[in-house]
Amino acid sequence: MRKSNLMRPLKGIVPPMITPLLDRDTLDVEGLEKLIEHILGGGVHGLFILGTTGEAPSLSYDLRYELIKRTSKQVNGRVPLLVGVTDTSFSESIKLARFSAEQGADAAVLAPPYYFSQGQPELIEYIGHVTKELPLPLFLYNMPGCTKVHMDPETVMILSEYPRIIGLKDSSCDMMYFHKIRAMLKQNPEFAVLLGPEELLAESVLLGADGGVNGGANMFPSLYVALYNAAVKKDIDTVVELHKKVVQISMTIYSTGRYGSSVLKGIKCALGLMGVCNDFISEPFHRFRDPEREIIRKFLSEIKIDV
Amino acid sequence: MRKSNLMRPLKGIVPPMITPLLDRDTLDVEGLEKLIEHILGGGVHGLFILGTTGEAPSLSYDLRYELIKRTSKQVNGRVPLLVGVTDTSFSESIKLARFSAEQGADAAVLAPPYYFSQGQPELIEYIGHVTKELPLPLFLYNMPGCTKVHMDPETVMILSEYPRIIGLKDSSCDMMYFHKIRAMLKQNPEFAVLLGPEELLAESVLLGADGGVNGGANMFPSLYVALYNAAVKKDIDTVVELHKKVVQISMTIYSTGRYGSSVLKGIKCALGLMGVCNDFISEPFHRFRDPEREIIRKFLSEIKIDV
Amino acid sequence: MRKSNLMRPLKGIVPPMITPLLDRDTLDVEGLEKLIEHILGGGVHGLFILGTTGEAPSLSYDLRYELIKRTSKQVNGRVPLLVGVTDTSFSESIKLARFSAEQGADAAVLAPPYYFSQGQPELIEYIGHVTKELPLPLFLYNMPGCTKVHMDPETVMILSEYPRIIGLKDSSCDMMYFHKIRAMLKQNPEFAVLLGPEELLAESVLLGADGGVNGGANMFPSLYVALYNAAVKKDIDTVVELHKKVVQISMTIYSTGRYGSSVLKGIKCALGLMGVCNDFISEPFHRFRDPEREIIRKFLSEIKIDV
Amino acid sequence: MRKSNLMRPLKGIVPPMITPLLDRDTLDVEGLEKLIEHILGGGVHGLFILGTTGEAPSLSYDLRYELIKRTSKQVNGRVPLLVGVTDTSFSESIKLARFSAEQGADAAVLAPPYYFSQGQPELIEYIGHVTKELPLPLFLYNMPGCTKVHMDPETVMILSEYPRIIGLKDSSCDMMYFHKIRAMLKQNPEFAVLLGPEELLAESVLLGADGGVNGGANMFPSLYVALYNAAVKKDIDTVVELHKKVVQISMTIYSTGRYGSSVLKGIKCALGLMGVCNDFISEPFHRFRDPEREIIRKFLSEIKIDV
Repeated sequence: MRKSNLMRPLKGIVPPMITPLLDRDTLDVEGLEKLIEHILGGGVHGLFILGTTGEAPSLSYDLRYELIKRTSKQVNGRVPLLVGVTDTSFSESIKLARFSAEQGADAAVLAPPYYFSQGQPELIEYIGHVTKELPLPLFLYNMPGCTKVHMDPETVMILSEYPRIIGLKDSSCDMMYFHKIRAMLKQNPEFAVLLGPEELLAESVLLGADGGVNGGANMFPSLYVALYNAAVKKDIDTVVELHKKVVQISMTIYSTGRYGSSVLKGIKCALGLMGVCNDFISEPFHRFRDPEREIIRKFLSEIKIDV
Repeated sequence: MRKSNLMRPLKGIVPPMITPLLDRDTLDVEGLEKLIEHILGGGVHGLFILGTTGEAPSLSYDLRYELIKRTSKQVNGRVPLLVGVTDTSFSESIKLARFSAEQGADAAVLAPPYYFSQGQPELIEYIGHVTKELPLPLFLYNMPGCTKVHMDPETVMILSEYPRIIGLKDSSCDMMYFHKIRAMLKQNPEFAVLLGPEELLAESVLLGADGGVNGGANMFPSLYVALYNAAVKKDIDTVVELHKKVVQISMTIYSTGRYGSSVLKGIKCALGLMGVCNDFISEPFHRFRDPEREIIRKFLSEIKIDV
Repeated sequence: MRKSNLMRPLKGIVPPMITPLLDRDTLDVEGLEKLIEHILGGGVHGLFILGTTGEAPSLSYDLRYELIKRTSKQVNGRVPLLVGVTDTSFSESIKLARFSAEQGADAAVLAPPYYFSQGQPELIEYIGHVTKELPLPLFLYNMPGCTKVHMDPETVMILSEYPRIIGLKDSSCDMMYFHKIRAMLKQNPEFAVLLGPEELLAESVLLGADGGVNGGANMFPSLYVALYNAAVKKDIDTVVELHKKVVQISMTIYSTGRYGSSVLKGIKCALGLMGVCNDFISEPFHRFRDPEREIIRKFLSEIKIDV
Repeated sequence: MRKSNLMRPLKGIVPPMITPLLDRDTLDVEGLEKLIEHILGGGVHGLFILGTTGEAPSLSYDLRYELIKRTSKQVNGRVPLLVGVTDTSFSESIKLARFSAEQGADAAVLAPPYYFSQGQPELIEYIGHVTKELPLPLFLYNMPGCTKVHMDPETVMILSEYPRIIGLKDSSCDMMYFHKIRAMLKQNPEFAVLLGPEELLAESVLLGADGGVNGGANMFPSLYVALYNAAVKKDIDTVVELHKKVVQISMTIYSTGRYGSSVLKGIKCALGLMGVCNDFISEPFHRFRDPEREIIRKFLSEIKIDV
């Protein structure tokens, strides 16, 4: 196990990496290598695998283990590596976390179990049990759209006191929630708060977030890094200009399909068109077919990312 | 593989068996044997393992495989055995179904993948892909409270035409939906429609359901069988009388805790008190502690089940 | 004021009358008279005006007052007359109720104020204040789909103890809720429980409801009366046969448009085609245009109602 | 009718005024005068009466008319006066708007009818009909938490082309929605976009909103004006500092009760304690009682607003 290079709090852009696939059960190994270099080449501050954007719940366990192993090896400590260990089964989460630790990951990321809804006391007790067996520091992951369970601000406050819990990734898309959390945690500056939705990167960093876990950084890592840096420097004109690009990506590449899956499909399709990796998507989804593919191609040709 | 004894449509009471556990990763083997005999002794028409009541998503895969093997061996063809193979990973679902088929199960039961929400066309395509690789006939499982995805009546209609799909277990608690489905499927009498919520057993069977997948039948199998039989015979006075007992169970044993988990906790606690099996519950929940346990004990002593 | 002919509990079919309109601000006076006779001719047990089906919230106050006056005069005590007084303004509710009492109405029907959501204690306090000023006995009206506020079973229990509150009209479409309410109220047989959705009439009366407030009884009053009577007599074969007709109406006449408004549009369109009254609908909706009208015409010609 | 002093687009802080009451049906006339001067004294850019914060749906029509008359007279053209005319009845909305125009109001504000949910095409048709009869320019009001109907971005786009519709007040609390709307409307700079939730004032103005309709400006108008001005000037340090005060108000004064009504109760209680006006609240709510009142008093003494 390498010595962790995880800063407290973790700051900056930590892309939630998509998982390049050749088919349902086969990693696109070559694409994975290219993708990691593409992302790290953009100057990001960390890498997060096996999250929602990484399609983790859709992948077989064998494939998840292989991905952890290969990614850790290639990242090789250049940036902190975070691994999603969310699972409906406690035991499978712990197994994933142990393997991740052995392979050199720096932290685990955990959303609530997502089949059965829990009450907040049940959730707190569950996470308490997890942290006892976890060989890695933990980021909480608030993702109510997928898990049905919202981590109440009071729950985050209680859990932020646990020594092993070092931050929150919030993907609730709710800035009211963020402001409340940020105010409640003001006595705990080492606890990182990062937001998932990239459309909220500008404002959240201006108003106190530590960074973003932005799916678009799979395609254009330097754009999100530049926006983060501008926000940290309070360079509002640059923030506004780059924020508009981010919104443009959201309103084109992420808005092509009809369902919630359109973000994932758009990112993978764009990466395929950019020649980075295969655009195969695991069940219950499928890659964009030709008509949508042409739309994405057109968007890509029109978006100017030169940061 | 035994020859299947599955009737078309499947009719009657098919209890969703709880999974007896000694701890997080250990089956209560002795309790499992007693529970199976307890349930089958009540005259039920089938057995369904690894559903919601069976805590399937919370169990490690090793434990799920062991449960399939042991249950199939002990049931030994006395009633049809249905196995839940719902998973967020396509590959893990197929592996579970293949193992179940090898062990002699009669059918698989599948709810939509429950992390990512799907649009109805995505869901239809997904289930189409599953059926191609499935070695067992399939029951659809509508469980929007846990999966977030509702199987629209039109979706059920389309899927009911697939030869491998032989029925629906509906746990939406929505009788408006049931009546619509029942009317739409009138040309397809071999397609079974069974309801999950036992509070709706009486009315659904009176108005055309083929049976019930009722959690309470873990505790009192003969009660649900008697209610089913009375409804089939249109013996309304008996139906009303037994229905009241079912509602009483729901308003006592299932209403003790504060969260959605109270049904599961109540059933397991009651089975423990009845001496059938251990009441351990897997994460993210925990068994009832003493105060709730005493409440359940009191309820049990007051409920008269003598059918 | 006439002496009220209201039985305790109110039992049977109490149609929620649509409001016949010539245009946005003009009653269809002739149509109103024909409609009332049409409905009462079917043998119904009461009449409910200014409910959801009556488009009450969409009507100007002048029009509501005129409707109360004309309807009360024409019904003339032949059946109990219930008047919806739901409003977001306490004072307007009381004014409506006072006028209704003066005109000879037998009871008021009240759903929670529907702009601001209330907590259950706020709702209980509000209804307590209303009953103090109300010159009529009161039916609670649970209609969470329109009001956003669900009347919890515990709330209904508390309010059922108030002497002026004599029943509940439940339009939650939730039979789990009904069974719970029915069991909780078993010590209070004078408190009426009537269900709104006609698709649930059969099962609710079989299992203890006092009757139905069914929109379809605007068109086919005798069908719903016959179904109610069959259920009271436990004549299951007739119940099943008539229930199927009710579901058929729901799946045709109520399912023609794309939005929640399709039920109202379907009923008014059918009444127009049947020559009973004008089919004008107030804002924010509009009557069916020709294509939908032809579909409704075809359905009407195919449905055989001969009870 | 005065000549309107409404700028296009309307920019700045437009407080949604609470309605001072002595009891359920009586305006606090003296309090109203003090409140208007208190708010205008803070340098605000407009005044909005009879919105959600103004408890409009809870007030009798007589009281609403009186409020319009008195407020318009006292404001006397010093700032633009916007009047909420939202109603479930089309005719009552138009009557309110006509009276408002006669009294000298500058614009009407309209949310969707809030009893029946509409589909988006129904909503567009409805608003089209309203604008034809409306004697005032119109602001759309997106308030899905109270109306159940969300104005989709595409709906806003279509309606923004209507000459009489001059802006949107969005209270969805959804910054993803705001960014989408802002981008879609970039060709229409005269169309104002103002946000309701004050916790989002800082970021929305920094990223393109025209202003805020912030309830807290009833208490501390100059704070919100200062924050707005700092955001316009891109003075981030001041923005961050004042934003923290706004969040502090939200987490104290608005968070004292248990229900959605706590914001309204908190504002009225604070104004009462500040000696501005009576804190009576209309049904279905009630003013804070002593324990909550003491909490609010303590918060008020701790908050330093000196801008």
